[in-house]
Amino acid sequence: MKKLGKQTVKFDNPPQIISSASVVGNKESQGPLGKYFDQVIGDAYNKQQTWEKAQMKMTEDVVNNALDKVNLAKEDIDFLLAGDLLNQIVASNFAARKFPVPFLGLFGACSTMIEAMAVGSILIDGGVAKRVVSFTSSHYQATERQYRTPNEYGDKYPPYKQWTVTGAGATILSNETGGVAITMATLGKVVDLGVKDPKDMGSAMAPAAADTILNHLEDSDHSPSDYDLIITGDLGQVGKNLTIELLAEQGCDVSKNFDDCGVMIYNSKQKSGAGGSGCGCSAVVAASYLLPQIMYGNFNRVLLLGTGALLNPMTFLQGETIPCIAHAVVLERTGHLTEGIGRPAIQDSLATKIETTKIEDLS
Amino acid sequence: MKKLGKQTVKFDNPPQIISSASVVGNKESQGPLGKYFDQVIGDAYNKQQTWEKAQMKMTEDVVNNALDKVNLAKEDIDFLLAGDLLNQIVASNFAARKFPVPFLGLFGACSTMIEAMAVGSILIDGGVAKRVVSFTSSHYQATERQYRTPNEYGDKYPPYKQWTVTGAGATILSNETGGVAITMATLGKVVDLGVKDPKDMGSAMAPAAADTILNHLEDSDHSPSDYDLIITGDLGQVGKNLTIELLAEQGCDVSKNFDDCGVMIYNSKQKSGAGGSGCGCSAVVAASYLLPQIMYGNFNRVLLLGTGALLNPMTFLQGETIPCIAHAVVLERTGHLTEGIGRPAIQDSLATKIETTKIEDLS
Repeated sequence: MKKLGKQTVKFDNPPQIISSASVVGNKESQGPLGKYFDQVIGDAYNKQQTWEKAQMKMTEDVVNNALDKVNLAKEDIDFLLAGDLLNQIVASNFAARKFPVPFLGLFGACSTMIEAMAVGSILIDGGVAKRVVSFTSSHYQATERQYRTPNEYGDKYPPYKQWTVTGAGATILSNETGGVAITMATLGKVVDLGVKDPKDMGSAMAPAAADTILNHLEDSDHSPSDYDLIITGDLGQVGKNLTIELLAEQGCDVSKNFDDCGVMIYNSKQKSGAGGSGCGCSAVVAASYLLPQIMYGNFNRVLLLGTGALLNPMTFLQGETIPCIAHAVVLERTGHLTEGIGRPAIQDSLATKIETTKIEDLS
Repeated sequence: MKKLGKQTVKFDNPPQIISSASVVGNKESQGPLGKYFDQVIGDAYNKQQTWEKAQMKMTEDVVNNALDKVNLAKEDIDFLLAGDLLNQIVASNFAARKFPVPFLGLFGACSTMIEAMAVGSILIDGGVAKRVVSFTSSHYQATERQYRTPNEYGDKYPPYKQWTVTGAGATILSNETGGVAITMATLGKVVDLGVKDPKDMGSAMAPAAADTILNHLEDSDHSPSDYDLIITGDLGQVGKNLTIELLAEQGCDVSKNFDDCGVMIYNSKQKSGAGGSGCGCSAVVAASYLLPQIMYGNFNRVLLLGTGALLNPMTFLQGETIPCIAHAVVLERTGHLTEGIGRPAIQDSLATKIETTKIEDLS
């Protein structure tokens, strides 16, 4: 691997995503992408005593699900890489204790899944891992009561606020062949343009997303048209539009091939403000919709960004603005599904559905 | 680089620590290692409005201090790697926004500094970075009110409880020569033997420390006597003794060359319970005492472990046990200080002090 420009790593032997899985809540299962997700939890408690434990269980389940799909045991994994929104990333820590595997805890807020895939790719192309699992999760009720106020307090819900996705996603990266390749990773800088409203995450995160996209294109000597899709993690409708505008101001036209996982995950009837957010948002959309699309051949090259707001409730109360970050990976189709590797279990269930879902249906 | 055994990475061209710096609070400056620290903040507010902002400022200052020592500019750095104990690692995030450099947020609780040095070493030996800064921080008042109860509530302070270090530490890792080499890194698994008392972190973390030490020795085919010193981050007196016992049960005798940064940082008159703890504990002891000792030649090979308790206050209230982790790096002397590189600024101030500090004085 080598560094391109200031922020991008290009992989010599691109790590392959050989499996991915998602577990979501009821609301997410009723959205436009509902049929693609692997597992739906019953109610928000997921048969546990608390919302936090519900999230821990989802997180553990999604890793096991991703392993099961390609018949791998826990011991076949070299590293776990994960983080989440709960204080001290406890959903990831508590899931990781079920696996006898070295664990690297990460925190990039809602960019964590992409950070985990980028660091995992570096471990694999660097020759120190054969397989890693990158995973993350978020949970609506657990997140709301930690970051804002408990829902029972009846706080206002302005239209630009986003809805935290209840969902856990996992990908297995490998030095084997047959999956979706991660050919580059662009690591983001912390960007803070002074947004202070913690309900308006889209506006806060858009400059970080635009910065990473511009730096990625410069580092890789690519233009937006080199990608079938440029897709952000959880900017929502407000942040999506703002990012397109910010890029246009820099002479970068992404209006034809840009979308956002937060915009895609709920429909307009689901009363979700500006769209989905949370670590789980990009993770479940990537794991169960985007990666199969690429594998099936509907997209050949995708720039996937995770976007994170790096605040906590106290920094807001202390009058601080919201620093943000965006990390990106380039996902490329390397071939068709191969027997026994890739995502054989998903091939059947997705084949017909994906054929009819083209890029123009996404926005 | 290559993987040894299950958990260890051995570097082909060992990254070199070419600079390190520390900023501490008043209490730390009055302890046995006080004279080694680079900067002491005035009071706990560090001329800021809140304790959290005080910590952010310390964190920013320590990175600048480490850069200044070797005449590097912000732009000379390829990546920042950091995390801390504040919810959503905001001390690190807010410090990172002052640097136009890609940032990888990490969370390993008090093992974060070692995790950051390990991942940074992988980036450098993997050829995608020339220089990285690994940093972390903790702050007594900010940590206490977040993790436990505000000090003003007068909670009990049992003798086995530890005292969170107010301190920030940074190291600059480089592909240049002339510093202290990181020759191996051993990444830890999450270990949870069922300890539930969040005031007894030493007992909770000791099994993780013992696990990583045993795995490191097995992976590297080393014995304890191959190290001049095996030193943990913040086990305190309780955890230190327990780790020695746990290792002895496995036939591993570290009784002659084992110490703990948390035991070293305060003296017995400072009323600090079982010793220091917090992300900053191992960071400042390593940055300002351990690395100069190695560079000066008093130690040739040291196994440095960071030890982290991966709980949050809610997991404790929900009846959960405390999962823990320990990451390790091997630090080796590669030569004397070189003009213009290494730590020239520190050489003068430390030369005479360090000559008289031998390993037997440590415990």
